[in-house]
Amino acid sequence: MRAVDVIRKKRDGHALSAQDIAAFVQAATHGSWPDYQLAALLMAIFLRGMDAAETTELTRCMTQSGEVLRHDDIAGPKADKHSTGGVSDSTSLVLVPIVAECGVFVPMMSGRALGHTGGTLDKLEAIPGFRTGLTVDEMRSILREVGAVMMGQTTQVAPADKKLYALRDVTATVECIPLIAASIMSKKMAEGIDALVLDVKFGGGAFIKDPVQSRLLAQTMVAIGEASGVRTQAVLSAMEAPLGNAIGNALEVIECLQVLRGSGPKDLTELSLQLAARLVQMTDVARSWDEAWEKVKRVWRSGAALERWRRIVERQGGDPRYIDEPARLPLAPCRQTVTTPRHGYVTAIGAEPLGRAAMRLGAGRQRAEDPVDHGVGIRLAVRVGDQVQAGDLLAEIFARSPSEADQAAMVVQQVCHVGEAPMPHEPLVRDVID
Amino acid sequence: MRAVDVIRKKRDGHALSAQDIAAFVQAATHGSWPDYQLAALLMAIFLRGMDAAETTELTRCMTQSGEVLRHDDIAGPKADKHSTGGVSDSTSLVLVPIVAECGVFVPMMSGRALGHTGGTLDKLEAIPGFRTGLTVDEMRSILREVGAVMMGQTTQVAPADKKLYALRDVTATVECIPLIAASIMSKKMAEGIDALVLDVKFGGGAFIKDPVQSRLLAQTMVAIGEASGVRTQAVLSAMEAPLGNAIGNALEVIECLQVLRGSGPKDLTELSLQLAARLVQMTDVARSWDEAWEKVKRVWRSGAALERWRRIVERQGGDPRYIDEPARLPLAPCRQTVTTPRHGYVTAIGAEPLGRAAMRLGAGRQRAEDPVDHGVGIRLAVRVGDQVQAGDLLAEIFARSPSEADQAAMVVQQVCHVGEAPMPHEPLVRDVID
Repeated sequence: MRAVDVIRKKRDGHALSAQDIAAFVQAATHGSWPDYQLAALLMAIFLRGMDAAETTELTRCMTQSGEVLRHDDIAGPKADKHSTGGVSDSTSLVLVPIVAECGVFVPMMSGRALGHTGGTLDKLEAIPGFRTGLTVDEMRSILREVGAVMMGQTTQVAPADKKLYALRDVTATVECIPLIAASIMSKKMAEGIDALVLDVKFGGGAFIKDPVQSRLLAQTMVAIGEASGVRTQAVLSAMEAPLGNAIGNALEVIECLQVLRGSGPKDLTELSLQLAARLVQMTDVARSWDEAWEKVKRVWRSGAALERWRRIVERQGGDPRYIDEPARLPLAPCRQTVTTPRHGYVTAIGAEPLGRAAMRLGAGRQRAEDPVDHGVGIRLAVRVGDQVQAGDLLAEIFARSPSEADQAAMVVQQVCHVGEAPMPHEPLVRDVID
Repeated sequence: MRAVDVIRKKRDGHALSAQDIAAFVQAATHGSWPDYQLAALLMAIFLRGMDAAETTELTRCMTQSGEVLRHDDIAGPKADKHSTGGVSDSTSLVLVPIVAECGVFVPMMSGRALGHTGGTLDKLEAIPGFRTGLTVDEMRSILREVGAVMMGQTTQVAPADKKLYALRDVTATVECIPLIAASIMSKKMAEGIDALVLDVKFGGGAFIKDPVQSRLLAQTMVAIGEASGVRTQAVLSAMEAPLGNAIGNALEVIECLQVLRGSGPKDLTELSLQLAARLVQMTDVARSWDEAWEKVKRVWRSGAALERWRRIVERQGGDPRYIDEPARLPLAPCRQTVTTPRHGYVTAIGAEPLGRAAMRLGAGRQRAEDPVDHGVGIRLAVRVGDQVQAGDLLAEIFARSPSEADQAAMVVQQVCHVGEAPMPHEPLVRDVID
């Protein structure tokens, strides 16, 4: 299969054959086509698209480009959750212990913070001692022992995706639904899972802001999952305001522990429970949605999920004392409070600018190689719809220096809108695709 | 100007600014963007197009990427001709001495054979001793002394084009009118000419077969030329059958000498004279088309152009004895004749397959680095419209081996169609764009 022929075919708007796609993915994995040919094909795919069969085949080849895990020796269903990325979205840390406590094994491979969004691995590493860089053998034994494991992707998983993602980033071919779907799903399909729930965000704080495009991405990924023999559902959730109140790694860990103790923010709690229940339902641990929902709520309320979380953290090297005393987690020294100068109702809290502000404080990364500071961030004191009086606290900043704190405080002032009248309440989850 | 921003802009269908284009061409010239970013942008240009202003700016930047010649010290108009490539198209060898004899200086930089089409440089080099690899200083003194010079592009001319053309070839981004136009015109605009005539081919033997696309290319190039201050006309000419009878380097040199002596094939003669007259007219050496046409015919008929040709050949190191005794030019040893088994009329002679057959005999190149054999080729004995009897000669093959001759003979049999009735005559030149 000559590269130039495959490129020409897609350039002219034709569907690529399974052989074409296999040659492309092989080339990305082994470097057998020069990068300029991969780049030309990526742009042709971006502008000409891929149909469902092509996208499924691309995903399959990308999955097969590396190690595909199986956990046949572990009796019981395996499942995972993936989010397309948001601000203050730490549902994974809440959902994993709940789902594991319900009897579903969770071999979760996550990513790191990028741009204005946080990453599960960085949050986990805010817990002193927590190791996310595990070998496959370590992963297997932890999964077997405590029912869940939370780790970074091994280099053996979907190496074609690593190559293609890096090229897409520098060739303006990122925002392409078939390529996004294949990138996400190729890694998930390598985890050896039976079911997958996808949290596909839309709105100002999401990577894909347009709800129509988000829905299309969700549908594409659900189709790929089902075609690959993995039960898959997608939840379309709004990402206008931050999901929880905390933005920043240690702050989000603290918030998740509040959720597991029953005192966390409503949106984060509800979305985490809903995603957990979908996994419990899809894996047939519950026979109906109602049963799944009740089971998840029971596990959460009883404190059993918190105990499970303690075991997972401990087994991955994390210091379990922070589970009981989260306030001891190291936070940045420069604190600054932001208050509102007027009374009224909180009408909007811009997730994207707050995510960027937290990133600039050091909580996230502009580039993949940037280091992360676990102690910095922003903790909101209000939520959209809250009534406030002049002088009320809007947020608290945790920064490394007063000038950095000032900058973040200015962003909070700008993006926490207080208006005359309350906004009508919009539901967080707008649709479920299965 | 970040590469990824320029790529994204074109990807989304926006026009690139002069700064964007300058950054792109700079990057191609100096390697400041990696090839994968150039490739992604080329594919985005291929699929999104470029408007007239962008194409002119791209051409200008590509021209400026290297040396731009000026011949101010040579009193008199300077002009050149370019063909988009055909089979048995050796108009340059006829036109150059005619135009020079009319008082127009011709600093012609030409290309080599590629694919099924021949190249002027390879034809010239069939004349023993003829040097086409000249320095700019040599070029200038030859131009001043004999009124014309025929040479290869120097490496200093439009280096951005060299880089981009090589990348386009391997990324399926060749057949794109703005990129083709900019590639051709960037080199021509560096020659220091006042006028340019373009022979834009269409039909089965052309690179761009569709007449609509060919016309668009012609219009694009004329607009670029005029915007660059060079009087430019384009002739749209049919390339279904070979233009002359000879396909192969020495064979075409011999045929051109026949044309200059007044006994060459009609199509090749007429097109050469027409292109020559357009240059004579555009440079105001003649005050009207009729005057230009008469002047060109006079110079041709008088034998003065042949004498001029002798001086040009001699000045470039070619052995002038071959001008008087072209039959002495070395031709390949294995000769084979092809006859027709039936009587009737020649209804079609496929230029493209004959060009490919000649290439396979060794007259041309599949890849730019292939060597060329000047002595091989095909000489047709018939033209479209001729009446033939069974047993009449169709063509003579000049090959290096009997088996290669057999293969070429088979192609001639297949593509010289003899039918019951004569075809209606179609004019060669379909339109002139100025």
